Amino acid sequence: MAITSRAKSKPGKKTVPVKKPVLRRKKLKVAIAGFGTVGRSVAKLLCQEASDTFELTHIFNRNVARKKVDWVPASVRWTESINEVLSSDIDIFVELAGGVKPAGDWIRKALRSGKSVVTANKLLIAESGPELVEIAREAGRRLEFGASVAGGIPAIMGIQDGLAGDRLFKIAGVLNGTCNFILTKMEATGASFESALREAQELGFAEADPTNDVEGYDARAKLVILAQAGLRVRLESEQIPCWPISSVEAVDFAYARELSCTIRQISLAQKETGDGLSVRAFVRPALVPMSSLVAHVEGSKNLVMATGQYAGQMVFSGFGAGGDPTAVAVVSDLYSIARTGQSPAGNLPVVETPKDVSGEFTAPYYLRFVVKDRPGIIAAVATVLSRYGIGIDAVLQRPGYPHSALPFIMTLEPAGSAMLGCALQEINRLDFHVEPVLCMPILVD
Amino acid sequence: MAITSRAKSKPGKKTVPVKKPVLRRKKLKVAIAGFGTVGRSVAKLLCQEASDTFELTHIFNRNVARKKVDWVPASVRWTESINEVLSSDIDIFVELAGGVKPAGDWIRKALRSGKSVVTANKLLIAESGPELVEIAREAGRRLEFGASVAGGIPAIMGIQDGLAGDRLFKIAGVLNGTCNFILTKMEATGASFESALREAQELGFAEADPTNDVEGYDARAKLVILAQAGLRVRLESEQIPCWPISSVEAVDFAYARELSCTIRQISLAQKETGDGLSVRAFVRPALVPMSSLVAHVEGSKNLVMATGQYAGQMVFSGFGAGGDPTAVAVVSDLYSIARTGQSPAGNLPVVETPKDVSGEFTAPYYLRFVVKDRPGIIAAVATVLSRYGIGIDAVLQRPGYPHSALPFIMTLEPAGSAMLGCALQEINRLDFHVEPVLCMPILVD
Repeated sequence: MAITSRAKSKPGKKTVPVKKPVLRRKKLKVAIAGFGTVGRSVAKLLCQEASDTFELTHIFNRNVARKKVDWVPASVRWTESINEVLSSDIDIFVELAGGVKPAGDWIRKALRSGKSVVTANKLLIAESGPELVEIAREAGRRLEFGASVAGGIPAIMGIQDGLAGDRLFKIAGVLNGTCNFILTKMEATGASFESALREAQELGFAEADPTNDVEGYDARAKLVILAQAGLRVRLESEQIPCWPISSVEAVDFAYARELSCTIRQISLAQKETGDGLSVRAFVRPALVPMSSLVAHVEGSKNLVMATGQYAGQMVFSGFGAGGDPTAVAVVSDLYSIARTGQSPAGNLPVVETPKDVSGEFTAPYYLRFVVKDRPGIIAAVATVLSRYGIGIDAVLQRPGYPHSALPFIMTLEPAGSAMLGCALQEINRLDFHVEPVLCMPILVD
Repeated sequence: MAITSRAKSKPGKKTVPVKKPVLRRKKLKVAIAGFGTVGRSVAKLLCQEASDTFELTHIFNRNVARKKVDWVPASVRWTESINEVLSSDIDIFVELAGGVKPAGDWIRKALRSGKSVVTANKLLIAESGPELVEIAREAGRRLEFGASVAGGIPAIMGIQDGLAGDRLFKIAGVLNGTCNFILTKMEATGASFESALREAQELGFAEADPTNDVEGYDARAKLVILAQAGLRVRLESEQIPCWPISSVEAVDFAYARELSCTIRQISLAQKETGDGLSVRAFVRPALVPMSSLVAHVEGSKNLVMATGQYAGQMVFSGFGAGGDPTAVAVVSDLYSIARTGQSPAGNLPVVETPKDVSGEFTAPYYLRFVVKDRPGIIAAVATVLSRYGIGIDAVLQRPGYPHSALPFIMTLEPAGSAMLGCALQEINRLDFHVEPVLCMPILVD
């Protein structure tokens, strides 16, 4: 007996109960564009686990000959011609090539020729999500992108549908597995950022050019998508300030531990209503208390927190990347289309464009100094801070460091980041610094 | 612009793009049966947040006069007659009365008269879920029960739809907020079980008769529902062994801490395939490592873990009870019906009945003894264990307890629970015990 039943029947029309419903729908024809790690995993799931519901008909890739594998059915057509795929009779086009171009054009064309689309393309959805959704609506077809954020974690469905009854005002999370791998490696072993990055690269968790991950751009694209799904606000990536994790050092984990915290790359978007809708959003390394679930997301895992007016804080966590977890998200989207049909759903609230988007954020802050030690340093810093009305909470200095490059930290009473930024500009001009002051918010849930 | 668009249009038919789609569907008429804490919260959400999509038309309760509130629209009909509700022209019947009878009959009648049903009734769904789903299928109507497990956490949707592409083999979690409140209170303050229970009762987190929570029966009903949704197996509550949390004492938290663990009430169901499908399932207090997210679920929160062959382990956490969180789950189910229609979805895999269900579970175990101290106790215990082929990992004894009632613990190498149960029967017959040995598995993720 099925927990959610298989067959549709007309309202009021009683069907004769049968012990095992054997009704089989026509299989949905699926084409995959992009046969890299995720593409291969999706093909595997479609051929092994989901072959009752879906028929894989096409695999598109450039230089497709070198991609061929022997475990897909002989009926699958391998092709280098995207037009052959888009002009075929497939039901669903699965876009896994990535990048804004030409993937966006393929998706537009697929939707307009009556195919539903499933994509894992975070850059494209962050940039053009609402436009593509509108094209899907006009075409009467589905566009699903559950795999574009946090891999296998059903975060978009969870916040958009599962918490549809709430009014969410905050989305926060650990959205980049590479950064989380590096930071948890530094936390566990005392490694430097450079050596943790090198290990991540050797293990395939970081790319040769890690800029997109380390600077926060990858997480930012995901935050834009989550803010659309959960907060129903339209952000542009460029509106969200990012701070790199590369300025975090081993000593910061030691100090964080003394404050019962650890350090994570946090992506946060928070809706505030006052004189019009405004949104606070950033991607940056931050201190998080050990009592929070966020502090216990290890390695390449991801975590998404959604906070609503009624249900409070919800957390979703799991593997945010990798071929198989991402493929699960893709195939779950395919099942969603199989289950509820090709027509786009109705009745979801409109996405608003906020009046104001900024990284301004009031919180207690952690400042880490590395100085050539001499008397009067704390007094000099305190003088500047007090001029900006910013209170000092504590000063900590661990023993065992040279006077020529002495790290110490200061924790601050809650302060606005803009005001603190001004104070830090002034503080950074003082002559005792060995490196610029590192500033991180201390987040509470 | 809507992130998921509002209007359905026919495939191929191009509609003229409009800036703000103003198409309004007819509101869905909703009746609430049961106007307690959750019913009031659902009514509030329907009247405040969701009034564009739904119209609350009836509120049913016994002695309804004493329930009346002035903040629902005057058009709402307050009634003591369930037949008046079920024979009206409502679209969706929301059952919040709880209990197996008469709620089950109301739901059957509602479905058969062409209404969709949303319920938060865990006992009923655990007992009769598949039967009711079949009735819904025959009637061509939706039956949604996202609120029946873990309140506001979209766990059922998350594992059933969000992870549809995976093959889940294990569901585990902290499913009872009352027990979690008691255990985390004991953990934080060193309180005894009795005093933590009293505090939970005073704060309204536990009922006057806490049996259902403390013995594990409440969590067990939820586990049955999650196993159906995620593992697609049909368990009967009676097949799942439960151990009470009342035998956990303050000293156990002290010992757990020395083992880098804490104690939670864990509900677990795990599918194993060998010679036919078998399922291991239990509800019991267990040691969980501090490195696990489970160890950091505090107070009345819940956590659901789902482990799949492809996406690995996913975690969902949040408030598992309370009026507002549960109401969010109910209203999210209502939105799901508004979004994807009254017809039940198709294409979900069949739920299987396992050949064998047992609480047998191989794990390292924690044994806590309270003894009248004398030489030879550890030797006596070790002799019995070794006869059953069970290896001892460590023996710990904290100072500061009287010789007349001395607690100490033993941790065991992984052992089968049935074999261990036999050994414990024999050990409990030895003459030095002040109370029976407490036995808990030590779980790793």
